[in-house]
Amino acid sequence: MASARSAGTPIEFGGKIHTVIEATPEAFEGLDFAIFSAGGDISRALAPEAVKRGCIVIDNSSAFRMNPEVPLVVPEINAHALKNHKGIIANPNCSTAIALMGLYPLHKAFGLKRFFASTYQAVSGTGAKAMAELKQQVFAWTKNEAIEHNVYPHQIAFNVLPHVDSFLDTGYTKEEMKMLNEGRKILELPELVATCTCVRVPVMRAHSISIDAEFERPVDLAVARKAIEDFSGAELKDDPANKIYPMPLDYQGKVKCGVGRIRKNIAFDNGLALWVAGDQLWKGAALNAIQIAEEMDRQGILKK
Amino acid sequence: MASARSAGTPIEFGGKIHTVIEATPEAFEGLDFAIFSAGGDISRALAPEAVKRGCIVIDNSSAFRMNPEVPLVVPEINAHALKNHKGIIANPNCSTAIALMGLYPLHKAFGLKRFFASTYQAVSGTGAKAMAELKQQVFAWTKNEAIEHNVYPHQIAFNVLPHVDSFLDTGYTKEEMKMLNEGRKILELPELVATCTCVRVPVMRAHSISIDAEFERPVDLAVARKAIEDFSGAELKDDPANKIYPMPLDYQGKVKCGVGRIRKNIAFDNGLALWVAGDQLWKGAALNAIQIAEEMDRQGILKK
Repeated sequence: MASARSAGTPIEFGGKIHTVIEATPEAFEGLDFAIFSAGGDISRALAPEAVKRGCIVIDNSSAFRMNPEVPLVVPEINAHALKNHKGIIANPNCSTAIALMGLYPLHKAFGLKRFFASTYQAVSGTGAKAMAELKQQVFAWTKNEAIEHNVYPHQIAFNVLPHVDSFLDTGYTKEEMKMLNEGRKILELPELVATCTCVRVPVMRAHSISIDAEFERPVDLAVARKAIEDFSGAELKDDPANKIYPMPLDYQGKVKCGVGRIRKNIAFDNGLALWVAGDQLWKGAALNAIQIAEEMDRQGILKK
Repeated sequence: MASARSAGTPIEFGGKIHTVIEATPEAFEGLDFAIFSAGGDISRALAPEAVKRGCIVIDNSSAFRMNPEVPLVVPEINAHALKNHKGIIANPNCSTAIALMGLYPLHKAFGLKRFFASTYQAVSGTGAKAMAELKQQVFAWTKNEAIEHNVYPHQIAFNVLPHVDSFLDTGYTKEEMKMLNEGRKILELPELVATCTCVRVPVMRAHSISIDAEFERPVDLAVARKAIEDFSGAELKDDPANKIYPMPLDYQGKVKCGVGRIRKNIAFDNGLALWVAGDQLWKGAALNAIQIAEEMDRQGILKK
């Protein structure tokens, strides 16, 4: 389903050609579930219409994430929250989902109390036009041509922008607040505190996040590494002596997020520093939405 | 002066052609001062020889930075330490100098207690060969050719590496520890605690740093901004509503570092989050060394 403009477009899936139909309220009639990924406005307009017609909505936008009636789910973390759904399930922000792939297993081991995060976010987080813009800027640079920008407010090639999403009056961006607010909801830790700085880097795909985390209980590096290894959402990539650590280039198209650079945090009594990389189009968006559907199927709650 | 291999090479400076001579102990005879920038081994071998011959050494390497007999100086911060020199003055690590351009004025205002830093470091920090490698990788990418790497252990184009300098047994890199150790010495704050994660990004020149800082006293945003504005080493670049914040592209070849994204830190009672960008070849290295010489001249201690 898409807008009227795209209706009729043929698309190939699973070896078959399907035809895009217009997303009207009536189009959801008779469907078991729908995955929404068309922005907050479309979700706000059509998700309640779909639910009214018995169709479960797994929504990738931020429209319903903080709604107390809507479960916000990363299946490896809070699959139990799905059973309370009232028709809509929200898929978390990409950076939040990726950060939690490192933080959640450590939280289980030591009790997460507070964290600081600085992100290194790929241009694909902004969409295909941003990927094209980086590519075009790089080509222009190699030919010594003028570098133009339309998608971002500044050149992104060979630059970094401490600016992801729009600014609030507090000086934070919306993206930066999602890490705290969605983190609290997913981890069910209303007292959690976190400060995040979101930064766009000239990487095509996969986000990376530098995290300083404080815990309730004393930390142990061997226990921390084991917790990451045992967690289904992450893989341990932590052998710096052999130059092994997570990098965005290695995590595009990967189901699991990579966690590495795990070390005792000097500036906390019970703290760790860590580095997480993950495909924000996969675990940070599409894959997590599909995993929510699969998990609901497993729990027998995918059909209304 | 350079190695025997480079002796005889003509170089132009100030409109005149000079000839490189070999850096032997005797070559320092009769000089007032010398700026060393040839790595720790050369500094360790030749700086004491120069000092023996009455030549003051301003050393850009890390060889003497933590030596208690050697002042480690950022002139805008601790020019008073210069008068205690015993012949060698150390120039700080690039990321440390740039971070302190944001932290020092805030420290004066509120009393710095603890900070967390994540860096976004340009390839020029590794040298000309690294800049050539990034360039070559980008050209190869535009031509769909295989991307090779020699300087870095992994591809740097369209990637980020959480790896700057060599790894210690603790899991930190040497670069990451410099931020804490040199920060303590320059700020004369032996109790300061800091955790740093150093990351290489595909930027040609100028480093950026995301900082979460905690202070002894309550913070005020207007006072913080005024402190940055009044500080000779930094300029305030903080108008996110108009998409104004420091970016590395804007800070190459700039004398002052840019400080922006200043906001109340959610995860500290008395804290700020900020973002600093600066030219690590200038304030982080060459410029600071020259500023040390100028400041010593002003204090009348440049000649022995």
